[in-house]
Formats: sequence, C-alpha cells, structure tokens
Amino acid sequence: MSAIKIDGKAYAERLRGHVAQAVKALPAQPGLAVVLVGEDPASQVYVRSKAKFTVETGMRSIEHKLPADISEDALVSLVRDLNADPEVDGILVQLPLPKGLNSDRVIEEIHPDKDVDGLTEASAGRLSLGKKGLRPCTPTGCVMLAKDTLGDLSGKHCVVLGRSILVGKPAALLFLEQNCTVTIAHSRTKDLASVCREADILVPAVGRPQMVQAEWIKPGACVIDVGINRVPSQRFEGKTRLVGDVDYKPARDVAGSITPVPGGVGPMTIACLLRNTVIAACHRRGWDVPSILDF
Amino acid sequence: MSAIKIDGKAYAERLRGHVAQAVKALPAQPGLAVVLVGEDPASQVYVRSKAKFTVETGMRSIEHKLPADISEDALVSLVRDLNADPEVDGILVQLPLPKGLNSDRVIEEIHPDKDVDGLTEASAGRLSLGKKGLRPCTPTGCVMLAKDTLGDLSGKHCVVLGRSILVGKPAALLFLEQNCTVTIAHSRTKDLASVCREADILVPAVGRPQMVQAEWIKPGACVIDVGINRVPSQRFEGKTRLVGDVDYKPARDVAGSITPVPGGVGPMTIACLLRNTVIAACHRRGWDVPSILDF
Repeated sequence: MSAIKIDGKAYAERLRGHVAQAVKALPAQPGLAVVLVGEDPASQVYVRSKAKFTVETGMRSIEHKLPADISEDALVSLVRDLNADPEVDGILVQLPLPKGLNSDRVIEEIHPDKDVDGLTEASAGRLSLGKKGLRPCTPTGCVMLAKDTLGDLSGKHCVVLGRSILVGKPAALLFLEQNCTVTIAHSRTKDLASVCREADILVPAVGRPQMVQAEWIKPGACVIDVGINRVPSQRFEGKTRLVGDVDYKPARDVAGSITPVPGGVGPMTIACLLRNTVIAACHRRGWDVPSILDF
Repeated sequence: MSAIKIDGKAYAERLRGHVAQAVKALPAQPGLAVVLVGEDPASQVYVRSKAKFTVETGMRSIEHKLPADISEDALVSLVRDLNADPEVDGILVQLPLPKGLNSDRVIEEIHPDKDVDGLTEASAGRLSLGKKGLRPCTPTGCVMLAKDTLGDLSGKHCVVLGRSILVGKPAALLFLEQNCTVTIAHSRTKDLASVCREADILVPAVGRPQMVQAEWIKPGACVIDVGINRVPSQRFEGKTRLVGDVDYKPARDVAGSITPVPGGVGPMTIACLLRNTVIAACHRRGWDVPSILDF
C-alpha cells in the first residue's frame, strides 16, 4: 500500500490564506523588514519570494538591500533602527551573511519580540522554557503537517534525526510541546535504523540525500522529511534535481504518510514566517492573536 | 549483583575542592549575591548552606534578606543594582518567591552573564543554541555523575523522565551535548516502562516517590535519580524520610550503577552553583576558565 502524500504546498497555501484573513481583521497592517546583504543568488530568490508573499497576504514588505562590504557596525545599527521603528513588526536578516560579518552578533541584535525567524537566544530560551514567543519557522511547519495528518499527537513517539539549532533541536522541543515522547538521534547514535523504526513520527533533518531507507521506517509511520538536497539528475545529464533525506519511492511503500521533496516541508517555512509576523504584531501591539492562526 | 552506588556527596566535595583551588589561582575573588525574600524555612536552610560553601571555597557571599512584603519593583531594582555592581559575579534569587511576586519577571531581570542558576531566557537559549553560557546546576550535576561513572557518554541512549524547565529539558539538552541519543519521556508517554528499559542512562526527574520500578531498568544501566521526595517513615511513626523517584532497593539489583537519595544528585546542585560562579567571573572579567573545572 502506498503512503498518503502530505501536500505541504497545499497546506502552506491554505495557511497563507488564513494569514491574509487574519491581517484583514487587524486594526493596522503589520510590516515585515527583510535585510539582504550581498548578492548571493539563492538568498535573492528567497528574499523576493518572502516579499511577494508578504504583500500577497496584505502586509507591508520593507526591504533593505545592502552591499556585501557593509561594516558589521552599520548592519547592527540598521537592525537597531528597525527594532525602534514602531511600524516594523518582524525583522528577518537573510542568512548566510557574506564572509567577515558575524551573523551570531547581528541576529542577537534583533529584538526578540520582532524575531520572526525565532533565531535569537531569547526566542530559543522562550521555546525551551515554554513561554510565549516566536518559534522557528521550519520546525513549526513540521509540527503543523504532522498534526494535520494525524490529529492529536499526544503520546506519539517522535524521532527527530539531526540536532541542528535551526531544525533538529527546536523541532524536538515543539513536538514535546505537543505531548509527544521525543527522541533526538544523530550521527553518534548507535543503530540509527532501529531507533528510527521506533518512530510514529519520523523527522529526518540532516541534509544527507536519501539516507533514510525504507527499512528504517515503522510500517504506517508519518514521515516529515526536512531535507532538501540537490543531486545530479539520473535522467538528464548535467541537470540536477531535489531529493529529501528519505529514499522516497521505497519509503512510500512502508510509511502511512510522507512529505514529498519538493512540495512538503519546504513551502511551510515562508508561510510560517508570515504567520509569525502577524503573531509578533499582535503580541507587540497588544492585539489578540486571531484564532484562525491556531493549529 | 548489586549496582555501584554513585556517591554524589563525595563527588560534590571533590568538585568544591576544585572550585576552591580554581578560586585561589584567580586574579581576584569572585562574589556570589544571594537574594532571599521572606521567611520560608526551607529556603532559609538552602541560602545558609549556599553562603557557607561560597565562603568555604574562598569566594565572597553577599546576602540580601528582604521582607516578604517587598514590592516587585523594589526587588527588580535590587537585581538591577547587582547587575551593575562590578564586584558581583553571580546573582541567585532564591525560589519560590512569596505570593504576589512574579518570579518570571524578577529572574528575567538577572543579567545572563551573572545568571548562575541558568534560569533566564538567554541562558536557556544559549544552552539550546550550544553557545557559551551558564548551565542549570542540577542537570549539570547529573551529567557529571554519569560521566564520572561511565566515561565518554557518546552514543549512549539517555532517557530523561520528566520535562520540567528546571531539570528535564535542560538535562536532555546537556546529555545531547555529550553526544548521547536522548529521549524525553513524560506523563503522556505510552508504555513508560519499555521506553525507560531502552536507557543506558536513565534520569528520572518527576518528583513521584519510588515510581520507577526495577523492571523499568535495563540490566546494567546507569540510573541518575533526580527525585527528592519526602514520605512517611515506615519505621518511625510520625517521622519522614527522603526517597527518590526510583524504588531504590530492588533497582539496585538490576542497575549497573545508581545514585542514592539522599547523597546522590542532591549535593551536586550547590557544588555546580559554585562552579558556575567561578565560570561567570571568568567569562565576565576576561579570565580563562580554570581547566580543573572541566568534566
């Protein structure tokens, strides 16, 4: 039997619709400031895409494009201005920054109440302490897709594969918040296959193309594949294609549900960023967070 | 065969010795400020004990005893003064605070660089993000005892039972830092016994007297019992005694090593607090952290 294909693209579209509805009902229009330093082509694509969806959902997009040779102090000073600007609800500094700029220092300058990427120490701390705050986007998207597929996640065993600060660790804490039993596995884990086979929800987030084999998956499990890896195409010489951390085709025969790559977790990140911008605006301006954004 | 009894009391004494040695070699004497509000007898005992060991290890103990009816603003203003005081390296606000005082707000006022209890959002975030910072004391003590008993923890499966912000979650992150595969189990976990039986290192931290049965323990496992529960004595009517979260006597026959209660994790907390005070002093004043404090 073939697994249910979890349509992240459709879910993200629905979520953006909810964000647009929420925005319409707010007393004022939230604004998202995006800071892009340098000319990295992938970063330019992301930033364009973020700006487009920000506007599509009815919010203001404030773009700051800076030369790659900007000084760190000048960048910090821009972030401070954005912190102080009452019209800016969310601040996103597109990573990676060009060489020579300390992204830890720059990110840490973002006021936690405007940290829509959820990357600051304060945001990470609020997540760990279970306090109100802005959660990282990609792991939030993972939880949303799992919940949309399985319903209540309470008591389910979630195995997160990978312990990065961007996905693995926050995903573990977010699935814990959903009352899952959570295991964090990684490169040092002994018998990774059998640890993964314990998972009701398997969340590979290691960035190793097709590493997770069908035999690692418990029959019927929900697989949320965070990996997005570019590999040479087998059909078209010189071309590339995207694959996840899971060997998708054979995995489909074992899993109960699985996200494809592309079209799974990927589209969720920006949708969650837009949702975070509305939440940040509501928290900071003292508005109720629209319940349509609950999941 | 009976398990090795992990002598936390002796380890803590040794660690205090290392702290004293480290302090002697520092360019100046670190100072720990302890703030006690109200007359809670247990808190008074803890604070006395902390002050005694601070002085014994060669550091300055600065005690602030305040009436239970102090205003929250006055308390916050004291914390701010301590933040600004260059002679103060660590600040500890003894919890719980009397009713009416918002401990979240007060704790959050502590500068993260002086947060020797590791309770602020920034400290929790630094732990989660793997950055330099002050780690919570009790979970650090758990890792120390496990490492002292087993050596390198890399690849071992650690099951933390409980997900409190004081112990469970930081313990999980600290064992993860040691390259353990980490599972966080809790009240919603299905078949807790069999999840616990997977553990090479089992860390019960739920505060339920003798809940963990011998059958929950994998033969030879290392058991670090964080629970300290007061129960009626079976031998002396009207008296009480302390027990852990583990049913100690039968567990001893299965485990490879186990902490007793009392005398296991308990004494580690203050010893780790003293160690944190030295680390805080070193970080803030630009000194190297003495390697004798490594574990």
